[in-house]
Amino acid sequence: MTKISMYTMCLVVDGENVLLINRPSEKGFPGYIGPGGKVDFPESLTEGAIREVREETGLEVSDLVYKGLDEYVDEINDERYMVFNYITNTFKGDLLKAPPEGELKWVTITEALKLPMQNWFKERFPLFFEAGTFEKHVVWDDKEKQAVKEVITKH
Amino acid sequence: MTKISMYTMCLVVDGENVLLINRPSEKGFPGYIGPGGKVDFPESLTEGAIREVREETGLEVSDLVYKGLDEYVDEINDERYMVFNYITNTFKGDLLKAPPEGELKWVTITEALKLPMQNWFKERFPLFFEAGTFEKHVVWDDKEKQAVKEVITKH
Repeated sequence: MTKISMYTMCLVVDGENVLLINRPSEKGFPGYIGPGGKVDFPESLTEGAIREVREETGLEVSDLVYKGLDEYVDEINDERYMVFNYITNTFKGDLLKAPPEGELKWVTITEALKLPMQNWFKERFPLFFEAGTFEKHVVWDDKEKQAVKEVITKH
Repeated sequence: MTKISMYTMCLVVDGENVLLINRPSEKGFPGYIGPGGKVDFPESLTEGAIREVREETGLEVSDLVYKGLDEYVDEINDERYMVFNYITNTFKGDLLKAPPEGELKWVTITEALKLPMQNWFKERFPLFFEAGTFEKHVVWDDKEKQAVKEVITKH
């Protein structure tokens, strides 16, 4: 049976700024990313996204807007890895003083891409700010360790 | 490991009309429904939706717009059942003369809800025609054979 891994990411926006986490090297995949993580069964995708923002930032978000799916399929390991992406500008609460995943930073949206980021997040970031939804589908060759197909559909 | 089953549905629209399948009793879940079916690994969700419309109707659809997720979680059987829903008004080709899943019928959108339909499709149908996307999350109690929670989020 194909292993299906499901994650969420939710960008929190306050006016011109977006909240990012500066993920340190020791955690792997270092650089600035949005809050998010694994969807726990039996929660919904939106419930998972809200919980992850709470755990990683301290903020209580609501009114999430679905922005799209970023997924890869890996035939060698028979795995589908899916990230469901949301955005919101509705939140309450204060930022955690000791955030578990890395330093929290409000960054100007237009300047964010100048920060160090993993390539997969750098590619996805602008899609959050376009109208409609996206669906990115990557076919990953785990023998050659490279993407052999990449399609972005916009709706 | 939680079993995750992924399906698509795609409504094809031509002006005032939508293409439905009149699913016969012998197939189970009889009544009018939209074309769709299981997502095959490693195809993308959109690829799956396009293939299912082709197999069940003969039409070649494109420019799909994502409308939302209809899912249920079943803790007793440790299963998540997800249907990803699309709509399009772009298609080519002719309807199959011997469609495999049931008679094909162009139905006026405003009259469609008068047709016999499974309740889960009747509830979902109007959401295809609203702006934005939806996320319906149902918690299913497989012992009592009933939904114990149902949340529809609109984005």
